Amino acid sequence: MTKAAIIGKGNVGTHLAKAFDGDIVSIDMFSSREVDRLTDEYTFIILAVRDTDIVKIGETVSEILPDFNGIVAHCAGSVDMEVLKSFFKNYGVFYPMQSFSKNIPILNYREIPLFIEGNNTDTEKRLMELAAVLSDNVRALNSEQRLKLHTASVMSCNFVNALYIMSEEILDKTGLPFDVLRPLIRKTTEKIMTHSPAECQTGPAIRGDKIIMEKHLDGLKDFPSIYNIYEEASSYIFNKFHNQLDNK
Amino acid sequence: MTKAAIIGKGNVGTHLAKAFDGDIVSIDMFSSREVDRLTDEYTFIILAVRDTDIVKIGETVSEILPDFNGIVAHCAGSVDMEVLKSFFKNYGVFYPMQSFSKNIPILNYREIPLFIEGNNTDTEKRLMELAAVLSDNVRALNSEQRLKLHTASVMSCNFVNALYIMSEEILDKTGLPFDVLRPLIRKTTEKIMTHSPAECQTGPAIRGDKIIMEKHLDGLKDFPSIYNIYEEASSYIFNKFHNQLDNK
Repeated sequence: MTKAAIIGKGNVGTHLAKAFDGDIVSIDMFSSREVDRLTDEYTFIILAVRDTDIVKIGETVSEILPDFNGIVAHCAGSVDMEVLKSFFKNYGVFYPMQSFSKNIPILNYREIPLFIEGNNTDTEKRLMELAAVLSDNVRALNSEQRLKLHTASVMSCNFVNALYIMSEEILDKTGLPFDVLRPLIRKTTEKIMTHSPAECQTGPAIRGDKIIMEKHLDGLKDFPSIYNIYEEASSYIFNKFHNQLDNK
Repeated sequence: MTKAAIIGKGNVGTHLAKAFDGDIVSIDMFSSREVDRLTDEYTFIILAVRDTDIVKIGETVSEILPDFNGIVAHCAGSVDMEVLKSFFKNYGVFYPMQSFSKNIPILNYREIPLFIEGNNTDTEKRLMELAAVLSDNVRALNSEQRLKLHTASVMSCNFVNALYIMSEEILDKTGLPFDVLRPLIRKTTEKIMTHSPAECQTGPAIRGDKIIMEKHLDGLKDFPSIYNIYEEASSYIFNKFHNQLDNK
């Protein structure tokens, strides 16, 4: 049975360990402070630690296991694989693209996209195989692509959620609960599951409806950051569908 | 059987007519140019026309039916009810909050929130009853609240979709299809259905992770509008969870 060590007991480490829990891979978990208990028995050491701790923990692992023959991989979307270069022969990246929250369970790990990179063909292949134990959605990706992907995921997840917070802030002033928006949010997501983003765009900005946009902005004068985002997003949408078409 | 006329054969008018199609309300549809065919036989006349056409069409209807005793309502999120005041005795608003796209069917109208306003108690009551024929989610709302709600819906639907377009633009450069983001998008929506926006916020901005944010911004230098939105959204998130807490 393949043995893997996961370093880090945060959101990613905990969810990964649970997901691997089965017959194919045996997992031992270590906190960052327990790294000195690591032994050579592991085929994989997964660094599920904060981005800023990857180099430090990587270095510590390499000092404890100077002749380590297995693979060491980090899990970060925006950290180059090569930060592990000076410490290990075989290293790579094991990046699950999901927004992990402490108290919200992962429903189905098999659907979570996993992005893999290895510093040589064999390492990449073995990390891909490890990833396939968890997910049906595994892909090789280099560090530059992964950084772009992570940026896109921040926009499609974290910033989308920020728009929900802004919406709630606006509704608060009218005494309406956030709940009134949920059917629209669900519908918006249903559409994007089967259509391209361009096909799904509606609203005053794509129509260039300045009268409505002015009314909305007028109501946002008490929310300066939301005001700016409203303006920026509207210009982006308008330019995307009008100016760019004109240039073609 | 209640008779209603829908003026306007665009997205909202077409979807409304289909939704009403049944035993309780009989619907006749008219385009803006066919308004002169209207008669006094209708209990409701629904103006499902462009925001900027509501006053003009309302005026025409009032000239054709000067003694109209029924109720005339417009369907706009951001237009004050009182624009119909000079034309009719009984008027109001019948606003279905949904993003209607021409070629994408509405799956279940009963879940779509409908927001109602009437210029007197009886008109509002009768519009509420008409709305209840279609939806289980009907609410009275004044024009000021409705404008705020419409602003919030633009943010939670149109701007969310704009973030998907931006994400696709970023991914395009790496050769990755938009599809890789869909599991994350679905998960983000699943979370918001049962949790508050504040509980769902994750990502570099809420952690104040400046190193990651700098890397992302660095990669967005070729996308000036996306760059600005990234900065604005990140500041909004950070301030929401840090500065505001400090002030409490």
